[in-house]
Amino acid sequence: MSSYQKILVAIDLSSESDVVLQKAQLFTGPEADIHLVYVQEPMDNVYVGIVPQSAAFSGLGDLEAQLGEELKQKLTALGENFDVPSDHLHILNGSPAHEIHRFAKENDIQLIVIGTHGQKGLQLLLGSTANAVLHGAGCDVLSIRIGANR
Amino acid sequence: MSSYQKILVAIDLSSESDVVLQKAQLFTGPEADIHLVYVQEPMDNVYVGIVPQSAAFSGLGDLEAQLGEELKQKLTALGENFDVPSDHLHILNGSPAHEIHRFAKENDIQLIVIGTHGQKGLQLLLGSTANAVLHGAGCDVLSIRIGANR
Repeated sequence: MSSYQKILVAIDLSSESDVVLQKAQLFTGPEADIHLVYVQEPMDNVYVGIVPQSAAFSGLGDLEAQLGEELKQKLTALGENFDVPSDHLHILNGSPAHEIHRFAKENDIQLIVIGTHGQKGLQLLLGSTANAVLHGAGCDVLSIRIGANR
Repeated sequence: MSSYQKILVAIDLSSESDVVLQKAQLFTGPEADIHLVYVQEPMDNVYVGIVPQSAAFSGLGDLEAQLGEELKQKLTALGENFDVPSDHLHILNGSPAHEIHRFAKENDIQLIVIGTHGQKGLQLLLGSTANAVLHGAGCDVLSIRIGANR
């Protein structure tokens, strides 16, 4: 039995990603193989029911591509800051929990690290990805409490 | 920023407690201060609706005391096996998630370690404590996947 070697760190590319990644590295040691994963939800999923689904919104695809480019730049910068090699940076598309589980399974991940906001007011919504990831994960999950008083 | 020093390992005293405790120790290093916590739910909570609440069941208190003694012996044996000092072994009474949160807060715990069974059939029920602990925890939570294929 050895310590975790293959780690998936799920990030949302907010400023809190630094905290999550910092803890993940501290926790797993310098020899661990860390993959940074950001999951981009398709906009027509996120905005269904808010934005009318009509031809007038055919620009949504362009906007999505532009957003994708910005996310890629942010992820690259994060990878450089934390010495994560570029082939360990991944932007996936789909439902966050589902994509994280799929990636973990396909890459023999032993530990998923994810930020969580606990369960107060708006934070209940923000924290829901961590819960969804815990449900049905095939490996261990470290949930990093964001904004906790220590 | 340093690694976790104060750890709460929540166990159910089944054979799987060994796996959870083993991982917790491996993960946190030999210098960590580990507290083993078992939460005993009051029997009248567990059996409400199954056992009639009548004078005929006044023996329930004795049974509970006997069970408590057996749990204490199991916990002591577990502590000896894993070099956890006896003043770091705790049997609490009440609702598991609530008691674990309370203990964590009162003792400045930085990491809660708990086993989870994922979410299939009967295991959905067994895994529900891990989810309840994650909800509303004031610190980080490491969920150890029990019975996973590695």
